[in-house]
Amino acid sequence: MTTRTGAAVAGDVRALCFDVFGTVVDWRTSVARDLESFFSDRDIDRDWPAFADQWRARYQPAMEDVRRNRRPWANLDTLHRENLEAVLEQFDLTGLDASDLDHLNRAWHRLDPWPDVIPGFARLKQRYILASLSNGNVALIVNMAKRADLAWDVVLGAEVAGAYKRMPQAYLRSAELLGLAPEQCMMVAAHNDDLISAAGHGFRTAFVCRPTEHGPDQTTDLVARAEFDVIASDFGELAAAMGC
Amino acid sequence: MTTRTGAAVAGDVRALCFDVFGTVVDWRTSVARDLESFFSDRDIDRDWPAFADQWRARYQPAMEDVRRNRRPWANLDTLHRENLEAVLEQFDLTGLDASDLDHLNRAWHRLDPWPDVIPGFARLKQRYILASLSNGNVALIVNMAKRADLAWDVVLGAEVAGAYKRMPQAYLRSAELLGLAPEQCMMVAAHNDDLISAAGHGFRTAFVCRPTEHGPDQTTDLVARAEFDVIASDFGELAAAMGC
Repeated sequence: MTTRTGAAVAGDVRALCFDVFGTVVDWRTSVARDLESFFSDRDIDRDWPAFADQWRARYQPAMEDVRRNRRPWANLDTLHRENLEAVLEQFDLTGLDASDLDHLNRAWHRLDPWPDVIPGFARLKQRYILASLSNGNVALIVNMAKRADLAWDVVLGAEVAGAYKRMPQAYLRSAELLGLAPEQCMMVAAHNDDLISAAGHGFRTAFVCRPTEHGPDQTTDLVARAEFDVIASDFGELAAAMGC
Repeated sequence: MTTRTGAAVAGDVRALCFDVFGTVVDWRTSVARDLESFFSDRDIDRDWPAFADQWRARYQPAMEDVRRNRRPWANLDTLHRENLEAVLEQFDLTGLDASDLDHLNRAWHRLDPWPDVIPGFARLKQRYILASLSNGNVALIVNMAKRADLAWDVVLGAEVAGAYKRMPQAYLRSAELLGLAPEQCMMVAAHNDDLISAAGHGFRTAFVCRPTEHGPDQTTDLVARAEFDVIASDFGELAAAMGC
């Protein structure tokens, strides 16, 4: 992993806009742990990381139905809930009542950050506006932040913009709400495609590699595939590159 | 000022939704100070509190044009800027360039909180989601918070809801984005009409009296005009009433 300096761009950037799932929080480990805790009380065992993977695998297709106007706007809690019921059936888990389903669905509100996030945020917050720019809905991001102590200055992203990434509006409306030009905003993500989309709309970009987001055998997003402004291995390196 | 206990409602409330201008920040003193500082460098003197009052007097009529669809959506920075030009003319102040006007307009991004706000927030934040539910646009609230160290969990309100208070959607969309029922949200304001509107849409209510919002001769909102859940003289009393 190489670290490049963001000094040349740091002066112009006013807001850091963070992807959340995978970039800020370790969704796979957290969801698997949450499921394991719930079902072990009921003497039920499954491959919970595999369950988390299957749940997540339905994420992009579900949003794609919204992006392509095949259905009206539905926030991520709604999409997660529909997908949860499908994956429970796949894993032969039946008989849960509505309150159990609600609790399980909120596993996505209880995700833990990667260990470098909290100290990284403390440094970055001194100098920059810290905005979430996630496909997660507002309640999900707010509840996650309260539990995990993530010090967002503002919760933006898909639900506020009315558009899922990678729709242009998800980025452009977020910048507009901040009263900033796109080039004053830096997208921070562990995903090449998110950054390439953001850059296409004028955002600055920081790639933070999360090589175990998808578990030990991850094959995607292990390296930066484009000339991003910053390439870092964690939020500490990001903070250093951004002059914090 | 009497303080009533919010203990009976504190258990159900998850989010405190704050009016900002007047309730959290002392706009009149702050705007007057900002104008005084800008113009004294240019050897220009006026009655700056009176200027602030005139600027604020144009606030409700300007929003009313949006509420009644007499013009398309315009955020508060835009309305403030139009009103600023009118008041400058009123006070016979001419010849400012666009950069000066932008700077002056951002006086509303540089408002100071009342002295009890920061310690009150620190107590309330432990137990509740702290949301702004202001007519101020997102950039205004975020920039104000960065400067004054206001620890919002989430910035909601008019621009995010696409509706100025007291339109129902300003309250209802804010609750919806939090994933909460209106009765799990408590509106905190120094203004009876804001609280009465919020209560009409199911919100809990806390009146915090700010007897000098409009200066030493204030005649409005000196007492609660309805049966609010909490009546307090500052955010310390509010925190105590809410079990913090």
